[in-house]
Amino acid sequence: MELLTATQVALNHRRRATNDAAMMSTVDFYDWWAQRDGSGHVVEQIPFSALDAWVFDAGTGNLGHESGRFFTIEGLQVRDGGLDTWAQPIINQPEIGILGIVVKEFGGVLHCLMQAKMEPGNINTLQLSPTVQATRSNYTQVHRGSSTRYLEYFVGPDRGQVLVDVLQSEQGAWFWRKRNRNMVVLVSGDVPVHEDFCWLSLAQIRELTQAENLVNMDARTVLSCMPFAEPDADSSTGDAFADSLARSYRYLTDGSENHAQHTAGEILSWFTESKTRCDWTARLAPLTTVGGWSRDDMEIADDARDQFRIIAVEVQTGTREVRRWTQPLLYPRGQGRAVFLARPIDGVLHLLVQARPEYGLMDMVEMAPTVHLLPGMDVSSIPDSFVRDALDSANSTVRYDNVLSEEGGRFYRALTRYQIVEVGDEVPVDVPPNMCWMTVRQLTDLLRHGHYLNIEARSLLACLHSLC
Amino acid sequence: MELLTATQVALNHRRRATNDAAMMSTVDFYDWWAQRDGSGHVVEQIPFSALDAWVFDAGTGNLGHESGRFFTIEGLQVRDGGLDTWAQPIINQPEIGILGIVVKEFGGVLHCLMQAKMEPGNINTLQLSPTVQATRSNYTQVHRGSSTRYLEYFVGPDRGQVLVDVLQSEQGAWFWRKRNRNMVVLVSGDVPVHEDFCWLSLAQIRELTQAENLVNMDARTVLSCMPFAEPDADSSTGDAFADSLARSYRYLTDGSENHAQHTAGEILSWFTESKTRCDWTARLAPLTTVGGWSRDDMEIADDARDQFRIIAVEVQTGTREVRRWTQPLLYPRGQGRAVFLARPIDGVLHLLVQARPEYGLMDMVEMAPTVHLLPGMDVSSIPDSFVRDALDSANSTVRYDNVLSEEGGRFYRALTRYQIVEVGDEVPVDVPPNMCWMTVRQLTDLLRHGHYLNIEARSLLACLHSLC
Repeated sequence: MELLTATQVALNHRRRATNDAAMMSTVDFYDWWAQRDGSGHVVEQIPFSALDAWVFDAGTGNLGHESGRFFTIEGLQVRDGGLDTWAQPIINQPEIGILGIVVKEFGGVLHCLMQAKMEPGNINTLQLSPTVQATRSNYTQVHRGSSTRYLEYFVGPDRGQVLVDVLQSEQGAWFWRKRNRNMVVLVSGDVPVHEDFCWLSLAQIRELTQAENLVNMDARTVLSCMPFAEPDADSSTGDAFADSLARSYRYLTDGSENHAQHTAGEILSWFTESKTRCDWTARLAPLTTVGGWSRDDMEIADDARDQFRIIAVEVQTGTREVRRWTQPLLYPRGQGRAVFLARPIDGVLHLLVQARPEYGLMDMVEMAPTVHLLPGMDVSSIPDSFVRDALDSANSTVRYDNVLSEEGGRFYRALTRYQIVEVGDEVPVDVPPNMCWMTVRQLTDLLRHGHYLNIEARSLLACLHSLC
Repeated sequence: MELLTATQVALNHRRRATNDAAMMSTVDFYDWWAQRDGSGHVVEQIPFSALDAWVFDAGTGNLGHESGRFFTIEGLQVRDGGLDTWAQPIINQPEIGILGIVVKEFGGVLHCLMQAKMEPGNINTLQLSPTVQATRSNYTQVHRGSSTRYLEYFVGPDRGQVLVDVLQSEQGAWFWRKRNRNMVVLVSGDVPVHEDFCWLSLAQIRELTQAENLVNMDARTVLSCMPFAEPDADSSTGDAFADSLARSYRYLTDGSENHAQHTAGEILSWFTESKTRCDWTARLAPLTTVGGWSRDDMEIADDARDQFRIIAVEVQTGTREVRRWTQPLLYPRGQGRAVFLARPIDGVLHLLVQARPEYGLMDMVEMAPTVHLLPGMDVSSIPDSFVRDALDSANSTVRYDNVLSEEGGRFYRALTRYQIVEVGDEVPVDVPPNMCWMTVRQLTDLLRHGHYLNIEARSLLACLHSLC
């Protein structure tokens, strides 16, 4: 546990000992949730020409805010072997925002201050969100709204004790090199709780991760980075999967112990190697130069209608920092799918991790779920037959299967079906060079650093925690 | 020593035990070095119009190779607060090359296979280089030369045991997001030694790091990433500096032991914070749009003559893969300077690390020496008076002071004066937010990952090793 502080270790222990003594029962949580009023929120698609302060640049065709802040819709151009091979619109948001959870102990149990937050792209208006979810433009108040609640716990002289503070990437298919600051701060003093916020224990949040479209993407990524209690691997539950999962969280003090198929050094080398296999380069280009895509006043869309659309919406709300605004959103066609195949190997659960290139990632490749199908992609597009077969094999056991939402502040109703599928010996230990079997612990160690696990892998790790 | 394999630990121990039993005495090395014939190498500046296969693009003005490979000279445009604030030419080389050292044990002592290698920009023609130093274009033979010697030890089915394999950045002031694959492979079989190569022990290489312009930049970065023996901190040498240096290499099993001023978690948070302070964005732009710079047939230069020039050279050589070629080079005006202030704090040497933004870095900020003056910059440009004062204080002791060369394959006679200056209590423990006191061990732990330490910091770490 090299990089965890003593405080974090102590917190883990306390959480493990008493993780059911929550401030509010889960039944009461659902009552509170039902009282959050989403009915005042209206999101309507509008023509681009009805956007306030968002304009298409006359030269480049890029869509941006007249303040020069927030984000822009630009073009992405990929070259491979000297040829232009791919182009698409992409969201460019260079600012670093904060996704932060305030944690505090009550009765020796760690609780997270979670928020019922509306985002314009949410399919169900409100989702369970981190304490703070703010772009730099938000919290420096470019839009002249009220200040971001609880921000003072994350920045400035009086902030809490920092437990997690790492830049993590977001969707490489839709964002240009976007990353946000994932933070967890521990506070001890009295924290006034606004009516749209509530304290939930980690065990409760993990339970809520089993609900559809409830724990939002920003909450999932922060939760995936949180110091996490090791389940007690010494006492067997009698359930082989649960025991192998518990062992997968254990720390390996020495790679030679062979709890894991690969040492940390081998994993880092495998990851480096995967980047050197990429022969393409991607760069931003004027949106007008993106071939195969057209724009009318309602949407920017690819002529084949295979990809996503860029649309504009008007939002009216009572609970956001400002009460009415307009903005562009990216609207996928259909639902994505992200699956980790998980196999107990020598009694330790391993996840089959993919080194996945995506054109919008900062350094080309990140570690991804075994399967990641963008909306509109079919299972038949998975190149490896053993993976396709495992998805509907009688030998496979689906351990997690749930539809969760992606970032509602930039995407309109972007849904992904997340699955964790336990497989057996028919999925080999020796896998193609773009894949690697890794333990949960190895993945969580890498989460101290940015640009290793992509957003879908982090989401699935948060889901996996709910199985402990 | 969480991320080191058992093999690496064992190697460290063996090196420590017998680090003077080298294959070749240092006297013999200098004899061998004197016999390397640099006299056949001729590098001459030529007009751009005399370049073979390098052309200025009619639309963008960018200078590139007609194969579309190697590298290009493009424009860099920086925006800050909605305004264009800085522009310059920059070298764009997206390909990932290999900088690799083959290591092998002889008589229980680890040796590195080093190369006497000519690069066109070297001030002294030949420098001591890694076993392999090859761009992807080199080793995939875009230039139709002979294949890269010893490459098979790093790639392919018969490669050696990988000890180091990490992507590390290069000069953020002159390169656009460049990184190379730093590798060390351990071999056990017989290795034929070509006449331009020799086996040197780590102790010998550290001794040679004390010579001017001998150990080249590519060797320094790989050496900085090598698993390094901890000096024995239990036995005092009687020299306070040496003892504090030895303790700085020691591994901290627990941040609460307080050998270091900051825990690893605090350092990562400090680094994340430093990125969020950057409000600028940089992107590639057509070279023709770079204001304040002009091009004639001999050079691309800034009108103020403050910065560097882009020139073209013709190279004739007997030892490179091909015998004659032309290429552009970046030619700095004057000499750079990079200094680590080092202070024993509670008996443990700490280096004063700067979180330094550079426009060409992949993620805006990397950890840099306390002082880094680009060629042409004066000490008066250092913002912190305590740093300026420490550079020529009577209380300071200069522990390392040497002129070393930067990458001779892309830069023409780029020299940097590297210094390690021991300071006393007059340099405070509490420093401005862009700085952090760190132990050597904390820095070397971060070198398992890319994009933490910049190239100048890595060079200085390699120099620091020579003081053990």
